[in-house]
Amino acid sequence: MKSIITIGRQFGSAGREIGKLVADHYSIPFYDKNLISRAAKESGFCEEMIEVHDERPTSSFLYNLVMDTYSFGYNASSFVEMPISHKIFLAQFDTIKKIADEGPCVIVGRCADYALIDRDDVINLFIYGNMDARIKRIMSRFDLNEQKAKDMINKKDKQRQSYYNYYSSKKWGRADSYDLCINSSLWGIDGTKELIIQATENFEKQHS
Amino acid sequence: MKSIITIGRQFGSAGREIGKLVADHYSIPFYDKNLISRAAKESGFCEEMIEVHDERPTSSFLYNLVMDTYSFGYNASSFVEMPISHKIFLAQFDTIKKIADEGPCVIVGRCADYALIDRDDVINLFIYGNMDARIKRIMSRFDLNEQKAKDMINKKDKQRQSYYNYYSSKKWGRADSYDLCINSSLWGIDGTKELIIQATENFEKQHS
Repeated sequence: MKSIITIGRQFGSAGREIGKLVADHYSIPFYDKNLISRAAKESGFCEEMIEVHDERPTSSFLYNLVMDTYSFGYNASSFVEMPISHKIFLAQFDTIKKIADEGPCVIVGRCADYALIDRDDVINLFIYGNMDARIKRIMSRFDLNEQKAKDMINKKDKQRQSYYNYYSSKKWGRADSYDLCINSSLWGIDGTKELIIQATENFEKQHS
Repeated sequence: MKSIITIGRQFGSAGREIGKLVADHYSIPFYDKNLISRAAKESGFCEEMIEVHDERPTSSFLYNLVMDTYSFGYNASSFVEMPISHKIFLAQFDTIKKIADEGPCVIVGRCADYALIDRDDVINLFIYGNMDARIKRIMSRFDLNEQKAKDMINKKDKQRQSYYNYYSSKKWGRADSYDLCINSSLWGIDGTKELIIQATENFEKQHS
């Protein structure tokens, strides 16, 4: 196994769990929230600060208006003036690139597909699920009633979508932003894992 | 093999060709444009009339304004008043349902996933591709230059999207409108076929 797998996912779709199973299957590193502490170590930002901005959009209209006056390059002068959320995004971006240079791994969320867009050894997945299955999963995971679970799903998906659409040139949840998209409600957690392994083997056969 | 496979596809993604390969693999019927003549026979509309409206949106603003006054039910009085494009859509819809009742098959386009939404033996796929690969394919298939191929792709995709979004309750090209979405440029035609067969076997194992 020589590839890097990135996973975008709807909240409650078991995308993280499935990614972990795939990483375990291949005995390769798995990155999710744990990316934060590594990005903290490498960038000098404190972990809490990164966590606050992790996969969260910079949403206000005024903020975006101000941001339009910044160039989005990475040179010293603009970095100094750049808002903290952008600096943190770039720190995570750098960490994702370093992680990919170290070899095969699974990275969940955080625009990893976009950070690695120039590599040809990356498989970009999107995992989603039926709303009722996701609600059940979130109800049991966070001990919530149905309405609260649904609200949490909608809020989280909206955050992920805003973050992805803001920082990447692609659209979150659109099939053609990814290489393979799987409904985990239909194939099940193990079935989805198996499909990913099959797809990875096909990919490596063709790109070897 | 006991399932019905529907395939939505971007123009130039080889979705039709891949669907045919899957149907041949399982020795099951394959429906694409040939659905038109069957819908014609069963509905009494002439084939040319169905072809004119096949996967084409009803696009004008005025038209939609008028349509809002029609109920979209299927009772005798509203059917008489219904515009021809809707009648043809419903004729195709009925034919798709009949075809599905006859057993396993592959159906390409024509909102087949939506027509069969109440069945639990259906696998809904979306096949798409990288723009450069699709342009190459269409240039060679229709003997067009690059710009003309690109224009044709954009026009056809727009038509398919409008048709799908108008008649179904889902969004064309959004991952969560389907069960599995595959970038045929990355996996190749045979690789995509293999993935579909693997997915079908997983599905039937779990739903048997």
